[in-house]
Amino acid sequence: MNLNYVFINNAFIEAQKATLYIADLSIQRGYGIFDFFKTLNGKPLFLEDHLERFYNSASKMHLPITYSPAQLQDLLYTLIGKNNIPDSGIRVTLTGGYATDGYTLASPNLIITQQPLTVNLAMDPVGISLVTYPYQRQLAEIKTLDYLMAIWLQPLIKEQHADDVLYHADGYVKECPRANFFLINQDNEIITAQNGILKGVTRKNVMKLGHSGYKIEERDFSLEDLRNAREAFITSTTKHILPVVKIDGCLIGDGKPGILTTRLSALFLDHVRQQF
Amino acid sequence: MNLNYVFINNAFIEAQKATLYIADLSIQRGYGIFDFFKTLNGKPLFLEDHLERFYNSASKMHLPITYSPAQLQDLLYTLIGKNNIPDSGIRVTLTGGYATDGYTLASPNLIITQQPLTVNLAMDPVGISLVTYPYQRQLAEIKTLDYLMAIWLQPLIKEQHADDVLYHADGYVKECPRANFFLINQDNEIITAQNGILKGVTRKNVMKLGHSGYKIEERDFSLEDLRNAREAFITSTTKHILPVVKIDGCLIGDGKPGILTTRLSALFLDHVRQQF
Repeated sequence: MNLNYVFINNAFIEAQKATLYIADLSIQRGYGIFDFFKTLNGKPLFLEDHLERFYNSASKMHLPITYSPAQLQDLLYTLIGKNNIPDSGIRVTLTGGYATDGYTLASPNLIITQQPLTVNLAMDPVGISLVTYPYQRQLAEIKTLDYLMAIWLQPLIKEQHADDVLYHADGYVKECPRANFFLINQDNEIITAQNGILKGVTRKNVMKLGHSGYKIEERDFSLEDLRNAREAFITSTTKHILPVVKIDGCLIGDGKPGILTTRLSALFLDHVRQQF
Repeated sequence: MNLNYVFINNAFIEAQKATLYIADLSIQRGYGIFDFFKTLNGKPLFLEDHLERFYNSASKMHLPITYSPAQLQDLLYTLIGKNNIPDSGIRVTLTGGYATDGYTLASPNLIITQQPLTVNLAMDPVGISLVTYPYQRQLAEIKTLDYLMAIWLQPLIKEQHADDVLYHADGYVKECPRANFFLINQDNEIITAQNGILKGVTRKNVMKLGHSGYKIEERDFSLEDLRNAREAFITSTTKHILPVVKIDGCLIGDGKPGILTTRLSALFLDHVRQQF
């Protein structure tokens, strides 16, 4: 096996040796942000979108980045070159830094890791099952380190024989912990929540498919709309478009991936292939 | 200066060398719990209350602790003996562990740190100023690592020339990020929120002072009650009873620590002294 490197605070080091001192505000107070993208054949996908979001998250969380986007991009390509993992997931994390008092923001720690990722450029033919749960992510439009609820809910998800959880708040459907949610209603409108969610890069690029004649809308919709959905799917960097066939034990449509979902997925995967 | 030790995963090591691998779920997903107590003259204060809450937090967060409370207590006393810091703050942290996939709970990492703390057994004669903010802590009764909002709000607190923030949700007053809040109304009732808060150890021990003839009640109260308060104070391990004299720019009473607050503080500090 090749040596796997990570970049941490100005140096490339062996992944197994990468540590943070316990004074770091991620360990002390869960404070930090990250972004995650994949490479296919060594080439990053939607990198500009991810970097834009990463810099936005950092700025909103009062975390200065000492590298310019161009410098960070250089570091990413250096890491990709050193590791030589053609299909991979790359995570860029920025924490609150080493607080002397365990509370006050310090100079952020920057960590870049890369791990092999099996990328499947075909849609899952079975689809997944979700369970709903009332929850509004805090600072929802920022990709923070906060996955407290998501991890805490894992036993519930298992108990309900579901694959993941779908959050809703004040009657409105929001998102999954690591994916955006789309619904297709009886009028064949494709809808994804507008407010109180993390705006995913895959979501953004799927919405661009609206130019191909599909009616894709960003607007808030209710739990009732959810119950009346004809089709549903989630989007994420690792999952692309993944059909949802069951929610809270009730089938969506006939419990098989829907026609529009399947078409959109084909279009999106074509779009992904075109990047290479 | 003496060498400062920390306990981390079965070993006492020098504090400056204490690290976690970056795979830890606190760094990856902000997942973990902690508790914090102080020692006076080398003796822990309200240790049983803190350990009880720590084990409860761990259990609710699906984080097994390999040590029994008695074993953990032994470790704490060993650390206290090694460090020899008479007046100190001790923090016991338990994280989600080294996740192989960056998401799934693993064997938790246990960290115990001790740092010098100046303990003032007299009430602050001036009092502090708070600014209110709408926010409900997630998993509020568990002492998790999540202080995202608290740290994020620091610039707002400074901008408003306040000392700390007081959360409220759905019209009800909740808590400060690291302290419980008490109000004294025009009927001289001393009230502290009941639901959606972390139940502090100092709060619990202040409430016991109700046996001394004071009417102390645990019940939810509104922002309007807050505006009509005669006195107010917060409680925490480091702050004991700390008067609040201004909220959102409006004086509480005449803007000086109230009579009842001052009496309660004297009683509480007597109670603390009696532990030694």
